[in-house]
Amino acid sequence: MITLPSIAPADRACGEEAQRVLDRKTKPTGSLGELERLVVRIAAARRTAKLEPLRAVIVLAAADHGYADENVSAYPAEVTAQMLANISAGGAAVNVLARQAGAELIVVDAGARDVVERPGVRSLLLGTGTDNATQGPAMTLAQAEHCVAAGVEIAAELAESGTGLVALAELGIGNTTAASALAAALLPADPVLVCGRGTGIDDEGLARKVAVVGRALSTNASRIGDPLGALAAVGGFELVVLTGACLGAAGNKQIVLLDGFVTAAAALVAARLDPASADYMVASHRAPEPGHDLVLAELGLRPLFDLGLRLGEGSGAALAIPVINASLALMDEMATFEQAGVSDR
Amino acid sequence: MITLPSIAPADRACGEEAQRVLDRKTKPTGSLGELERLVVRIAAARRTAKLEPLRAVIVLAAADHGYADENVSAYPAEVTAQMLANISAGGAAVNVLARQAGAELIVVDAGARDVVERPGVRSLLLGTGTDNATQGPAMTLAQAEHCVAAGVEIAAELAESGTGLVALAELGIGNTTAASALAAALLPADPVLVCGRGTGIDDEGLARKVAVVGRALSTNASRIGDPLGALAAVGGFELVVLTGACLGAAGNKQIVLLDGFVTAAAALVAARLDPASADYMVASHRAPEPGHDLVLAELGLRPLFDLGLRLGEGSGAALAIPVINASLALMDEMATFEQAGVSDR
Repeated sequence: MITLPSIAPADRACGEEAQRVLDRKTKPTGSLGELERLVVRIAAARRTAKLEPLRAVIVLAAADHGYADENVSAYPAEVTAQMLANISAGGAAVNVLARQAGAELIVVDAGARDVVERPGVRSLLLGTGTDNATQGPAMTLAQAEHCVAAGVEIAAELAESGTGLVALAELGIGNTTAASALAAALLPADPVLVCGRGTGIDDEGLARKVAVVGRALSTNASRIGDPLGALAAVGGFELVVLTGACLGAAGNKQIVLLDGFVTAAAALVAARLDPASADYMVASHRAPEPGHDLVLAELGLRPLFDLGLRLGEGSGAALAIPVINASLALMDEMATFEQAGVSDR
Repeated sequence: MITLPSIAPADRACGEEAQRVLDRKTKPTGSLGELERLVVRIAAARRTAKLEPLRAVIVLAAADHGYADENVSAYPAEVTAQMLANISAGGAAVNVLARQAGAELIVVDAGARDVVERPGVRSLLLGTGTDNATQGPAMTLAQAEHCVAAGVEIAAELAESGTGLVALAELGIGNTTAASALAAALLPADPVLVCGRGTGIDDEGLARKVAVVGRALSTNASRIGDPLGALAAVGGFELVVLTGACLGAAGNKQIVLLDGFVTAAAALVAARLDPASADYMVASHRAPEPGHDLVLAELGLRPLFDLGLRLGEGSGAALAIPVINASLALMDEMATFEQAGVSDR
């Protein structure tokens, strides 16, 4: 078993100090609403009330899934590699949103089918996607440990470069099925409660997806008792990399910004491996996948917005970066009542 | 009576064309959720599906209110002038958020008490705030027409400089009472259904506010039958300027970005004066004022987020600017399925 990063719980006192700083700023008490809770959370995680906008990097992990053979997605499996090429060329939604947010984008091929080398895409050389989890484990434990370590390594590299905000992103045809299986195994919850329409399957597809998740869980019943075992047995390569990135980032006191359901499922594994990691997580948006609400509730997270996004790729996380950095800029730049000579109530 | 700008209704065909453009982009159909509805709305208003990020300006109008004499606010009336000074010095929330959003900030003193000349603050020379509307009209019709014209003029100047997104912002101790009275008069609705806690009054203060709105409506019963009459009788100077800015911007095919309840009340007057103006409005966030939901529903608008913001100053609108411009950048920069060689479903 690999050694996981050591993660300190957030420092509540720094959060309380941040609230006192906010209360001296020229605004009605509490009037920044959820943004104040966000700032307090970040102060506690960063262990300082002296906050300013964070250098943000989006880590997008891509992989293919044996689940795709079960016809659970609205798009064919070849789309994973095609979209990796599109991202490499700068034409995908996440490229545009990263540019708009002023965030760097790191793309990791964690095991996609038919991928040729692409500029700007790092390959973990894990082959052509996971095995079909309805017939056995999706990957070996050794592969899972390799991917966790790769995620931890990326977070370390980002900490090195001064990145304070690590946004998680994913790509992989079939990966909401993997996330659903993982959520069902860990929460635990009935597959019917966590499965959604992903990129847009119909009623029949959804019924098939629920059945596939049920079969994956029963096939792997002996393997899903612990978080890493469940991740390997019914998860996916990109999910494991993201779990590693979560743990690594939390170990470096970096804020982990979640995107939708798939990144939340990876974060849930991290929180099960080390509950302190959840102190570093921020949920960007609420996705229309039913499992997302359940996982966020389990993580104790409230998303910043609910725009009905079901694109993945870190799109919701990218949109949240300017909101988070604006909140931190308020801490840094707003005048206090004393400084501005404004009467408090 | 002044001549209002001529406003053409939005062109639905351009919205439909924008949806077709979105559907060819490399993403699951409809997966950008509310952002797709936003883009379609903007395309219809701008009369083109060729969209890109818009130059954004925040127009903040400030004024004092006779209502403040009725003890309806958590803060003393002197705070309006103090906050104008704070904004002039760059230390208020809106300054920080405008910088973060890359938006220019225009500050208009529409009639605040005790204001000395401040750099960057334009004065409309309307004196020291409205009269107490519980005892008579808040302002004369001539004053209201002057303020509407000033708002129209600002929008024209912004159109001249290539501004496509006009974000409305306000400042004024007592102005949620004015907005409540206006909403109650125009919807119409019982004062108890529209009054909220503003910047943070207690139960007693809220009861007082409801009673004050009731008295303002009965005192001015003969004047509130038409939108401009209601605006003059129970509104406030900054609200009138914003109504004018709404109408002017819509006349120039600029997008009007609303902040919270006060800007929505001003927008409601604009929509009553010319229903086509509502086609140009976008609601940034949902404020915790009960009247806000009612006014947004009347305007047919769904806010982009709900962060419990009750700061005013255009804070919610400023936070929405990067989200709106990111959506427009997606229209401009994302590859299509054909361009990227990605398989559609």
